Amino acid sequence: MTTTTTATKQFMTTEQLLKHWQGHRNLTRRVIEAFPEKELFEFSIGGMRPFAKLAVELISIGGVALKGIVEKNTEAYNEEGFIPKTKEDILKKWDEETEVINHYFGQISEERFQETFNLFGQYEFPVYENVLYFVDNEIHHRGQGYVYLRALGIEPPFFWERF
Amino acid sequence: MTTTTTATKQFMTTEQLLKHWQGHRNLTRRVIEAFPEKELFEFSIGGMRPFAKLAVELISIGGVALKGIVEKNTEAYNEEGFIPKTKEDILKKWDEETEVINHYFGQISEERFQETFNLFGQYEFPVYENVLYFVDNEIHHRGQGYVYLRALGIEPPFFWERF
Repeated sequence: MTTTTTATKQFMTTEQLLKHWQGHRNLTRRVIEAFPEKELFEFSIGGMRPFAKLAVELISIGGVALKGIVEKNTEAYNEEGFIPKTKEDILKKWDEETEVINHYFGQISEERFQETFNLFGQYEFPVYENVLYFVDNEIHHRGQGYVYLRALGIEPPFFWERF
Repeated sequence: MTTTTTATKQFMTTEQLLKHWQGHRNLTRRVIEAFPEKELFEFSIGGMRPFAKLAVELISIGGVALKGIVEKNTEAYNEEGFIPKTKEDILKKWDEETEVINHYFGQISEERFQETFNLFGQYEFPVYENVLYFVDNEIHHRGQGYVYLRALGIEPPFFWERF
């Protein structure tokens, strides 16, 4: 009996995950804001991408991926559709994606989060794992952004402040 | 009816979270391994801590925090108890903590994950949020480690390879 109970214990609800993710997105938004315009698009370390490129990657995944999951569309991932010229372009698109994420996330059922889906025709995992990947990937790249800011002599926002 | 159902949808089980976390820990272990001995303890960018210090922080949180949660002990967080001299010291302790995490994580009930706990006498949040923080904090610092490795001309392990 104990074993069965343990195997199906809930860790968190979908609402809690969405709030957690949007909290992270809010922090990433402030990291984008913290970069000077020029360095956002040009500064890098060790041959890695500038932070603007990383932000475009994040923008190209979250909402688009959720839409694909909801509509069961396995079309390939594409970063070419959004080519920002300014920090303002990025922040505006960032805020639009906040709404797209809220819209599609709410349409995924509890059962669906456990089903396998071939995201972008390439990442065949349970939906909850794909969603965790979006959040993890954002934290990972943002950590890189923290180093860029420190190397530029700019203090990044506190990691634990999310709203 | 729909509203009530939506509000309590499960995102993932506790077993899935533990597997996810240990997958990340496995990747972090390989990042530690990827550093040359000297650079692990000395290399840094922008005045940030060397990766050995970050690894000690991670080691000082996960298992210790879970033990505190299970035993309802709010004793303060402390990084002074473990002072590694070599990469091998860190990796050995890392593996010991893997078992500590598995041991204590399994003792936290579904209800407990939703209860507020004053972790380390300082971080008063629902237990599931504290656990997410441990994972997020690890991804954040490891992202920093990736930049250190790239700056050293070393290719880091793939972000998506966890086991």
